[in-house]
Amino acid sequence: MEADQALLDELHHVYLFEELDDEQLTRVLRNSQRVSLPAKSLLFEAGQPADRFYLVHQGQIKLFSLSIDGDEKVMEILYPGNTFAEAIMFMQAKRYPVSAQALGDTVLYSFDMKGFRQILEESQQTCFRLMAGMSRRLHARINEISNLTLHNATYRLVVFLLEQIPEDAIELAEIHLSTPKSVIASRLSIQPETFSRILTRLSAAGLIEVKGNDISLLDVPGLRDLL
Amino acid sequence: MEADQALLDELHHVYLFEELDDEQLTRVLRNSQRVSLPAKSLLFEAGQPADRFYLVHQGQIKLFSLSIDGDEKVMEILYPGNTFAEAIMFMQAKRYPVSAQALGDTVLYSFDMKGFRQILEESQQTCFRLMAGMSRRLHARINEISNLTLHNATYRLVVFLLEQIPEDAIELAEIHLSTPKSVIASRLSIQPETFSRILTRLSAAGLIEVKGNDISLLDVPGLRDLL
Repeated sequence: MEADQALLDELHHVYLFEELDDEQLTRVLRNSQRVSLPAKSLLFEAGQPADRFYLVHQGQIKLFSLSIDGDEKVMEILYPGNTFAEAIMFMQAKRYPVSAQALGDTVLYSFDMKGFRQILEESQQTCFRLMAGMSRRLHARINEISNLTLHNATYRLVVFLLEQIPEDAIELAEIHLSTPKSVIASRLSIQPETFSRILTRLSAAGLIEVKGNDISLLDVPGLRDLL
Repeated sequence: MEADQALLDELHHVYLFEELDDEQLTRVLRNSQRVSLPAKSLLFEAGQPADRFYLVHQGQIKLFSLSIDGDEKVMEILYPGNTFAEAIMFMQAKRYPVSAQALGDTVLYSFDMKGFRQILEESQQTCFRLMAGMSRRLHARINEISNLTLHNATYRLVVFLLEQIPEDAIELAEIHLSTPKSVIASRLSIQPETFSRILTRLSAAGLIEVKGNDISLLDVPGLRDLL
């Protein structure tokens, strides 16, 4: 495949390619293909020999498996910028463990596993760079999950707090909730640790005050602004 | 350090160690230490030579950097089961890029970077296993983020929809919102793609009906149950 600048820019954002040098990237691209899949078409089935991995360029890919009863279990939905089946490249087994289907009309880039693996086998330095990149990305994702969980839980807690007071309350400076904190946390499906972190943050922002099991709402408009 | 069974069980859940064989794990543990840090104590400062990486056993570690003005920027908070500073091991630079401080009383395990790196340099197979594990974990995290984002956004959308009707509405079977969907999505900070996915799911569950820009609430108690 010819490498245009747009494709190269796209690849630089993908963890597998970001650490390759120009010569390595040229080799990878020589054995790559652009694949257009109409909606609902099957790309591969579970159990088929795996020799290529993929990058979604446009559209969506569903990875799924079928139970003995024919029930479908969706494992993952992949969007533009996501790669899939590349983990197989690092393993002994060389068969696709799941099936892949295009959801809408989808465009993929497909890459040769053997060629990519060979680049890694030839250069330990490239392996280490790839591991560094993956390690950094894992940390970034864990961070993102932690923030999303906190954000989610904060939202639920603030909605709960505001539900306890009249809808038009604005002037009201202080209300006490005597529900035990552990009961609120459990009702809102918030982990105790996360719950404590949220109370600390809201208190530090002057929005609430916590005394034992009592929570006072000090700044109702401020709490509403969080939603 | 002596390896007790509890520690071995803990290490098996950490991506860096899960692919090591017994002999490799024994080597790693021989050069590991248990470190107890009182609350607020500094573990290392940005710029110090990096020769060890860490696993949080109890407590929390804050990674942060200081601006020229002395302002603190928190990069990451690490909880039990999280590793940190291990990405440095795969890089050329061998200095900690940030500072690390214990938030509460904290217990860590510390590991020798050089020894761990040597294990990887001796065995390409171990490198490939580690890359496979990291690749799988990256996919799992991306999946988790996608689910959390969807969950978050669904919650916000349902709250918005219910805000449009009287608080005691239960019998009410159908209400039309004529606000353009793009306006609702933007007001709720939901990406257009995610917004479409949520509408599709809620429609499939019989909770709403979407006709062009109109959204009908077909099942108000069902929507409330989502919160």
